[in-house]
Amino acid sequence: MKQTDGGITAVPGIRAAGVECGIKTPYYKEKRDLALIVCDKPSPTAGTFTTNKAKAAPVIISQEHIKNGKAQAIVANSGNPNACTGEQGLKDAIRMAQLTAELLNISPELVLIGSTGRIGVPMPMEKVEAGIKKAFNKLSYDGGNQAAHAIMTTDKFPKEIAVEFQLNEKKCRIGGIVKGAGMIEPNMATMLCFLATDVNIDQPLLQSALKASVDKSFNMISIDGDMSTNDTVIIMANGMAENEVINSKDKSYKKFCEALDFVTLKLAKMIVKDGEGATKFVEIRIKGAKTNQDASKAAHALARSPLVKTSFFGEDDNWGRYMSTLGASGIEMDGTATNIWLDDLKIVENSITTGYDKANAKDIIKKSEFTITFDLKAGNAKATLWTCDMSYDYIKCNI
Amino acid sequence: MKQTDGGITAVPGIRAAGVECGIKTPYYKEKRDLALIVCDKPSPTAGTFTTNKAKAAPVIISQEHIKNGKAQAIVANSGNPNACTGEQGLKDAIRMAQLTAELLNISPELVLIGSTGRIGVPMPMEKVEAGIKKAFNKLSYDGGNQAAHAIMTTDKFPKEIAVEFQLNEKKCRIGGIVKGAGMIEPNMATMLCFLATDVNIDQPLLQSALKASVDKSFNMISIDGDMSTNDTVIIMANGMAENEVINSKDKSYKKFCEALDFVTLKLAKMIVKDGEGATKFVEIRIKGAKTNQDASKAAHALARSPLVKTSFFGEDDNWGRYMSTLGASGIEMDGTATNIWLDDLKIVENSITTGYDKANAKDIIKKSEFTITFDLKAGNAKATLWTCDMSYDYIKCNI
Repeated sequence: MKQTDGGITAVPGIRAAGVECGIKTPYYKEKRDLALIVCDKPSPTAGTFTTNKAKAAPVIISQEHIKNGKAQAIVANSGNPNACTGEQGLKDAIRMAQLTAELLNISPELVLIGSTGRIGVPMPMEKVEAGIKKAFNKLSYDGGNQAAHAIMTTDKFPKEIAVEFQLNEKKCRIGGIVKGAGMIEPNMATMLCFLATDVNIDQPLLQSALKASVDKSFNMISIDGDMSTNDTVIIMANGMAENEVINSKDKSYKKFCEALDFVTLKLAKMIVKDGEGATKFVEIRIKGAKTNQDASKAAHALARSPLVKTSFFGEDDNWGRYMSTLGASGIEMDGTATNIWLDDLKIVENSITTGYDKANAKDIIKKSEFTITFDLKAGNAKATLWTCDMSYDYIKCNI
Repeated sequence: MKQTDGGITAVPGIRAAGVECGIKTPYYKEKRDLALIVCDKPSPTAGTFTTNKAKAAPVIISQEHIKNGKAQAIVANSGNPNACTGEQGLKDAIRMAQLTAELLNISPELVLIGSTGRIGVPMPMEKVEAGIKKAFNKLSYDGGNQAAHAIMTTDKFPKEIAVEFQLNEKKCRIGGIVKGAGMIEPNMATMLCFLATDVNIDQPLLQSALKASVDKSFNMISIDGDMSTNDTVIIMANGMAENEVINSKDKSYKKFCEALDFVTLKLAKMIVKDGEGATKFVEIRIKGAKTNQDASKAAHALARSPLVKTSFFGEDDNWGRYMSTLGASGIEMDGTATNIWLDDLKIVENSITTGYDKANAKDIIKKSEFTITFDLKAGNAKATLWTCDMSYDYIKCNI
């Protein structure tokens, strides 16, 4: 497997466009706000969606449409999430799918929808409809980067990736785009990720591959602990690589999963690096947890704690805050048995300081990327999570 | 019942002192760092303590000592929490109790300990011992305010209160001091609260009154969602009011509870108003929750969300963030049924905007104190919580 140039349109049979239609307020630097992604034919499609109880209209409609396991197009906008918009919001989401379907001359059920922005504002449908038409006219086999721009909100850079790999001597690709920043957390948040592949794979296996991949990537990043009403990850698999269909968890499935995991993890890490106000990229590794759930819970508690995150920004080796946060996280642990490392420097053994050299610790925590490892000595479960610090600019971005 | 001047030494039979002994680093503005509170006689005593798994040594020892339901003295220091200090930490906490007991000529089991500061640093016992002796020599029946100063860490002002009320025609008092700021959250956090009363009450009833009172006050405030290794609330009841002993949940018990609730809630609100970098005091009311647990969970989720808290600081009526946070909080709710008020202005009905006047909303959210009320329409349970905003100064305090 190798990473290649481009994003979602690096996959054969995928056209995309990203255009400006005035949904976004002048607040946003990036003006493009409507993306269209179209597959040459109806394709097995899998998705994972927010578990937020205040689910946005596009999520509700997409979950309806994806029930048949197929899709052919994704229409997405930034600048308005169509969330907390009631009955009218549902009508507007349906209209977005319908209009896209009419233009493509396909069934509306083959169209999925993604929206992101500030909650509670009615969709400016006149602009949205004009945008969909404009995007349709601009669809091209190299429009992926345009689409990556059009889904950005507070993102500082567009995020896309493509990889190539072989299955039964057939060249296969996975490509994708994502938007993140801000409210990124477990179970995903204000996060739209659209993926495509030309791999020939049965839908149930595509769904299980995606679910597992999201659990290890997008669900293991954290900016500020909030989760949005609109999170959506979709993958369409058009089968144009003409590999022998993957219909069991065989070697080809594993190779596909590896490539998919590479793609989702890279995209997830891009989101963290672009976190609102982030100046540090921190990997949190938990080992020795009693259960996988505890390992994940501990990692998320650390990544969510403003006291821990401000200590990263302050470049302070304040491991007492880590211990306090772990102890309060609700996991099973012996408060007197924890070991902690900053990169390879052991700073805590059995919950007390190792008497480490403070200058060495400072050198590590001054870097823009470092790892903190915890051994809870309560079992064999592990988790790895990626997060960022909380800086003055985080506050500035959010007021 | 009426509020009176003074704090813990407004209660007859209580002496206190607060002295400087050099435990605190020069970082702290307030230099006093050792407090001693002594009751004229062994007294029924109740306590509630942190549920953090990385419990500090003074908490472990105090929980041991309070098992017999009696205490006569509290020794507390700021500048070092004696947390994550291993075996030596336990020895040091025991030594603090022993030395205090020797000076007072009482049993060490009658001495409880409280400590607060930066985790993981060994206790400077020479200074601590000198401090205990110094405080012992300064004990006085009007030393409560000195003690209130000596437990401060990043607190900007000392916090104390006293009330008077009648039980069977006997004048009774409750007085107390607290330190907070920073890591205040459910189940308490870097929070030391020492209370005394001259009410004559059986220990089990004192414990149940305290537990219920803490649940409605200290456990319903939130600064940044973190919980510490050292949280402690203690009340000693010396019986010197000579009221007929309270030994059942009768009228006198209820009157005592009312006074105690008044005291704990006032102290809890003082902590929020002194939250690190806080510029706003926000009351969050949840009604219509399915269960009490859901009501509390929803309130805490809102108070913990950096996105919600920065929107307070930014004076932005961003109710979409409230909805998103509620939806992600894990409570039972219908995402399309929520009503929200800013003070008395209804801004959301059935999860969509009421089309309220933005200028009116702005006027409310610009105030230094306001209330946000949520009706979840899922049941009859309620909760009220007090929190603050998250400002640039929060980051500054914590780096």
